[in-house]
This record gives sequence, structure tokens and C-alpha cells, in this order.
Amino acid sequence: MNFCSHCGHTVRLAIPQGDDRPRFLCDECETIHYQNPRIVAGTLTVSGTRVLLCRRAISPRKGYWTLPAGFMENGETTAEAAARETREEACAETRLHGLYTLINLPHINQVFMIFRADLEGSFAPGPESLEVGLFEEHEIPWEELAFPTIERTLWHFYADRKQGEFPLHMSDIVPDRERQSGAG
Amino acid sequence: MNFCSHCGHTVRLAIPQGDDRPRFLCDECETIHYQNPRIVAGTLTVSGTRVLLCRRAISPRKGYWTLPAGFMENGETTAEAAARETREEACAETRLHGLYTLINLPHINQVFMIFRADLEGSFAPGPESLEVGLFEEHEIPWEELAFPTIERTLWHFYADRKQGEFPLHMSDIVPDRERQSGAG
Repeated sequence: MNFCSHCGHTVRLAIPQGDDRPRFLCDECETIHYQNPRIVAGTLTVSGTRVLLCRRAISPRKGYWTLPAGFMENGETTAEAAARETREEACAETRLHGLYTLINLPHINQVFMIFRADLEGSFAPGPESLEVGLFEEHEIPWEELAFPTIERTLWHFYADRKQGEFPLHMSDIVPDRERQSGAG
Repeated sequence: MNFCSHCGHTVRLAIPQGDDRPRFLCDECETIHYQNPRIVAGTLTVSGTRVLLCRRAISPRKGYWTLPAGFMENGETTAEAAARETREEACAETRLHGLYTLINLPHINQVFMIFRADLEGSFAPGPESLEVGLFEEHEIPWEELAFPTIERTLWHFYADRKQGEFPLHMSDIVPDRERQSGAG
């Protein structure tokens, strides 16, 4: 950030009075520009015993396989964001169940949230996908998954499916540490 | 938003190519300025049978009672944000349990997340609180709670406490509609 988005003046990075961390400040109009983490929402959509995966047509990780997911937009709920991303990337309608994984990624200022869902009807690649398919467990391209969040979510799913219960899994992924956060 | 925070040129609101909703666009440096929901994280902290509440010293809802909560910062996890907010507003250390309520507020672009926690040690008003106290159920100032999210979280807590189980509750609060989202 170089300029104030409100008045166009240059900004500087400094700790505001009463605060404890640096923010971009505008000395002209006195706006404090806060920056906050973003939510990435998506689905683990199943049809029978198979899981819906999309092969990415865009960077980052173009050509690798992912669960349909993307940045939550203003004006929607987390569940609406997850369903919309599945519609956009896989042209698929879904019936959503509960929140299944919540993974904090503090080094990139993201919170990743995946809902379990049932596929309703057909699917096809959206503009951000090269192809979309349904995979049995032994068909999952583990070495070609796009992100650690996807691998972890699928790993939980196949472990939980043996028990027939799918509780929320909360955890963190950071480059130099890996922690379970306070959640059952 | 009036000016590009990257190059200082004026921005205009238009739908970018390949997108489906208006964004602030810079014609000079071609930056697309996305705006996304923010997470508000906090705790329902208990000591024995009592719940920790803070009376707000700041707008909005100055003078009303709240659970300690505030905007999640870059570089932290949801649980770290909840613990930090409790430390800042109530000078209280906590032992966090699981995520307890997740309430979508799409009309104000927020996702509210409360973790259950146990109080560890003492408490006192932080700079954003007029006073901090521990309340039995019959002492809760229901008519003087700051936000509907706080009332709903406390309502869930007292209902669940009768059963001795505290599952995650996901729901939405919007001015003209009130819906349960897809979660158990």
C-alpha cells in the first residue's frame, strides 16, 4: 500500500495511538487502513463413494487437483460462498452439510473452510478448471494435489468415513510449525 | 474507495473481464481491488458457573455488555485472535476449548466466531472496557447486551449447559431474514 484509497495522499506505516501494531496511516485525512485475513470457502462434494475434484486452469498451482474453493465475497455467508465456488469451478449444484475443516494459514493471512456436500445433478469444468471428475479413494492423485489444505481435508475424510462420523477438524498450517488449535 | 492504493490514480467501479461483480479498478496500473468479509473472534470465558462479560468503553454500543471479541489480525489464527481479544478487553488469560458459535453477518460483511474458554487467573478492564465481571445466568443483563451475536451465543450456552454438551452452532443473522445454515 502506497497511497490512501480515500484521499489519494501517500500513506506511511506506523503504530497508531492506542494500537500495538503498524498500520498504513494517512496524515492528510487521518484514515487508518486496516488489513485483515480472508476466508477461503469450498466444498468436499461427494456422489456415492466418490469425491469431486477440479484440475486448476489458473495460477497458482495450475494443472494440479483441488477441491472447489475460493475467496468468500462481501454480502454472502460462508455456506453460500462454498456453494458458489463449487458452482463456478465445477458447474455443480450441491446440498451442503456441516462445516468440516477449518484450517488457519497465518503466514498468508487466510482461513480455509470446507463444508461437506452431496452432489445434486451433473458437473462440468468452469472457466477456472481444466477438468472436473469424481474419484474413488484409490484414484485420488495424492502427488498432484494443489495445496496442503486439500490433502489434509481428504485425509480427514477417508479416516472419518471408516467411523461414519464427520466432526469439525480445526488445525493450523504454517511453514515452520504445525499445530492443532483448541477444537475437538 | 476513491484512489488506487498502489499507484494513487483514481479508481472506477466496474465488472472486470471474466468476473461477475463490480470491483474497484485502476486503469493506470490495472490493479483490481478486492474487498472481502472480516472475521470477528472472541471467547465465551467461564469461571465455575459464571461467564465473563465486558462493558464497552467504545462505539458502537458504548456502555452495553459484550463477550470479549474483535477483528482478527493478519498473521494470527482464529484461536489466537480470540485469546488476544480476551487479553486486551478483559486482561484475562484463557484456556481455549473448541469453536462454539459461527454466525454469518452478510449485511455487514462479517463472520463472528466465539470459542469456549476457561478463565485462568484474574481479570480487569482493558482500555476498551468500562468494567469486566463474572455473571451467573440469572445476572446476565439481557436487555443491555451489545449485539444480537452475543445474545445468541449466551442463549446457546445456557441451553447446552443443561445437556452438558457444547456442539458448534452455525447460523446467520441478517436484518430481513434469519436462517440456519448447513451445519449441525
